Amino acid sequence: METGKRLTTNAGITVGVVRKLLHRGARGRLGRILAKAYPVEVARLLSTLKGSERAQAFSILLDECDAAHVASVLSEMSPADSTALLERLDPTQIARYLSELPADDATDLASRLPDPLATQVLALMEAEPAADVRELLEHEERTAGRIMTPNFFALDEDMTIAEAVSALQKRSEEYEMVFYLYVVDKRDHLVGVVSLRKLLTTHPSTQLKRIMVTDVINVNTGADQEEVARLVAEYNLLAIPVVDDEDKLVGIVTVDDVIDVLQEEAAEDLLALAGVTAEERVTTSAARSLRLRAPWLLLNLITTFFPAFVIAQFDWAISKYAVLAAIVTMPMGMGGNTATQTLTVMIRGLALNEVSSVRQIVLKQAIVGLGNGVINGVVGSCAVALFFKSFYLGLVLACSMVINMLVAAFAGTLIPIALKKLKIDPAVASSVFVTTFTDVGGSLSFLGIASLLINRFPHT
Amino acid sequence: METGKRLTTNAGITVGVVRKLLHRGARGRLGRILAKAYPVEVARLLSTLKGSERAQAFSILLDECDAAHVASVLSEMSPADSTALLERLDPTQIARYLSELPADDATDLASRLPDPLATQVLALMEAEPAADVRELLEHEERTAGRIMTPNFFALDEDMTIAEAVSALQKRSEEYEMVFYLYVVDKRDHLVGVVSLRKLLTTHPSTQLKRIMVTDVINVNTGADQEEVARLVAEYNLLAIPVVDDEDKLVGIVTVDDVIDVLQEEAAEDLLALAGVTAEERVTTSAARSLRLRAPWLLLNLITTFFPAFVIAQFDWAISKYAVLAAIVTMPMGMGGNTATQTLTVMIRGLALNEVSSVRQIVLKQAIVGLGNGVINGVVGSCAVALFFKSFYLGLVLACSMVINMLVAAFAGTLIPIALKKLKIDPAVASSVFVTTFTDVGGSLSFLGIASLLINRFPHT
Repeated sequence: METGKRLTTNAGITVGVVRKLLHRGARGRLGRILAKAYPVEVARLLSTLKGSERAQAFSILLDECDAAHVASVLSEMSPADSTALLERLDPTQIARYLSELPADDATDLASRLPDPLATQVLALMEAEPAADVRELLEHEERTAGRIMTPNFFALDEDMTIAEAVSALQKRSEEYEMVFYLYVVDKRDHLVGVVSLRKLLTTHPSTQLKRIMVTDVINVNTGADQEEVARLVAEYNLLAIPVVDDEDKLVGIVTVDDVIDVLQEEAAEDLLALAGVTAEERVTTSAARSLRLRAPWLLLNLITTFFPAFVIAQFDWAISKYAVLAAIVTMPMGMGGNTATQTLTVMIRGLALNEVSSVRQIVLKQAIVGLGNGVINGVVGSCAVALFFKSFYLGLVLACSMVINMLVAAFAGTLIPIALKKLKIDPAVASSVFVTTFTDVGGSLSFLGIASLLINRFPHT
Repeated sequence: METGKRLTTNAGITVGVVRKLLHRGARGRLGRILAKAYPVEVARLLSTLKGSERAQAFSILLDECDAAHVASVLSEMSPADSTALLERLDPTQIARYLSELPADDATDLASRLPDPLATQVLALMEAEPAADVRELLEHEERTAGRIMTPNFFALDEDMTIAEAVSALQKRSEEYEMVFYLYVVDKRDHLVGVVSLRKLLTTHPSTQLKRIMVTDVINVNTGADQEEVARLVAEYNLLAIPVVDDEDKLVGIVTVDDVIDVLQEEAAEDLLALAGVTAEERVTTSAARSLRLRAPWLLLNLITTFFPAFVIAQFDWAISKYAVLAAIVTMPMGMGGNTATQTLTVMIRGLALNEVSSVRQIVLKQAIVGLGNGVINGVVGSCAVALFFKSFYLGLVLACSMVINMLVAAFAGTLIPIALKKLKIDPAVASSVFVTTFTDVGGSLSFLGIASLLINRFPHT
């Protein structure tokens, strides 16, 4: 199993080895290594190389490997990287590579090309793949119709097992992967499914319609890709058939594409909560990162004016007892933390469709906020009261902590629900609103109560 | 396609219908509905029902459906829910259900039972599945050896295609899913793989070793489940073989389990960044949520003392010019936002193994932090200078904003890298450290510079 080991560790194509070969000018040898490696490995390698080294390695790939391999490598790269490399080629070359790819991958690449170039490339592609790409491009991004492959293996319900096996043997070369044999009626309506294994273990003269399962889980072309992924994941499927509005079978989405969708969506949620676009990676250039993040930070800058404005209203109290300025940051910060916890649980719950009774969830989060407010309020205010030798300072902190953790619970639950109702992605927009509430809630409750008790604090 | 539609919308088993049948006492009718539904649908239904309704529905499931269906439903539920339901049954019943499950799912459930019960159940299970579960339990949690199924289909390299097909036909019933035919030598070493399709399209007298692919991507039993998932996702596999330290084939991990791992890990990262354990869902009880979140909030409470302490050192400056107390929250907040952005990109980069040159990444993030510090510093300080009629207040804010965004860039990159080096999950522990740095950096830089220029501010 040396070969297996090599692949699991990728020892065969380390960046170091490739750099050495590039500097030695060993094009032929490097070409053979690239041709033998899996596309995803070559893609990873190209993404790691920079500038002229990447350009050199890519030109060796083009010269020494067949078009199908080059195409697969391109489709395994990040969208930004593959587009950058494609744009250096002439339209005829791009068309040749796209023609080699499964329709869904070709569509993905084509959709990222700038417009005049994309049209040129489509015109230069072979007729059949070009037609497939055009068809997929008609569907909206991130829908089943856009990510499906229109090249699937379907059989007529009246066929026998023997006929099905011979059809499979004759035509299997054309298809990426055959997991299920979908069965259609005379007018292409999806009516059933037969597993490959069932095909092997049933008598050859049996008709497909007698052994097919008629309960086929399917999606409409307009279904959101998240919904497609959820169904495949929940029902442990290897592929899901896509039907049009007349229930005609028009494509399938395979599990490998579903994994891509799941990874993409998970990363987006994670990044969106922090105000980062899904496009940004550690490898993104500084200029691009700056441009991508600036709008979010400017929006946040506006929200920082609110608590600043609130605190400024209490300048008379702070002038009398400046320690208030130090302690006000505590309920603000703790409210923010509670709100982020609540918000994250809500975002996940909304994504998994687990939010049924809003009242029950808000009530529960309010109890949790109240409980944690009391625990942290007591601990925090004891420490503060002892340190600053003021019982009343501790009391104000405790009250403010409890109040702001309740604010956090309400804002953290109701804002994402409201945004979802307004068809705004709660993962993207919630956190900026929620923390504004807790910043204002924390500063207003703390300084408001403190100003009522201002004469109770130690004189400074 | 009414049946397909029913399944995609789940209209057949809405909670409302089930409640109605429960209240009417229509056990038989509900039992038939539960028996016909997919296990995942019944699992979702049971999770939505509460208290006595859930208990009733579960007892109907036990009485009216076969053991295999009950077992599948249990394995589709969340760990907390399935354990709670299992603990109500006697050990003999639990053993019966576990014996019906694939070994990996049975192991998962068995590992969650409290200890004396788990031992009893294992002793009561059928000999063969019990042995499988015991074997998997010997491997550490979250490794390939723990999540694999030891029941795979492997053939001897000297077999012919005809013999392989007949072996598949005879024994396919025993296996969950057969995607690839793994080929082993006389001593069970993994030596190759043949696809089902290749089997159908090759001449029956050909020997397996002549058509097998020898480059088999595989993992060791000790491999982390994230590594397993990454390989399956990257190489678009349907299953990955697991070998022991002698390269003997001992199990496979299938793509449906990989999807579970990916979803689990993605949710954990998202929740961990916010200080929520993966266990918590919107449906978790208030008492449990409170207990799960309290430690994180108390840890955060401690960290809020640091900026409070810093601000308290400048009480003399704040007494003179109380507006400083309002504005200090701005660089603190903006530093926190920048740090969260940077941290999230890093967590993702570390998970995807994209972090190669630390120096390069830190430098890049510093440039981004500097750029955003200048942009937000200029915008924010102009607004503040105009509003409070103080050029110097604006100047102090601008300087502090730039400094703290640099602090955010360094803390946001170096802390997760350091934690990863220390083998601590950066997603779990980073954010509390990082925001402490930016809170201290923001307050210290703002008030430090302000105190140097204290005589330049308007008199209050």
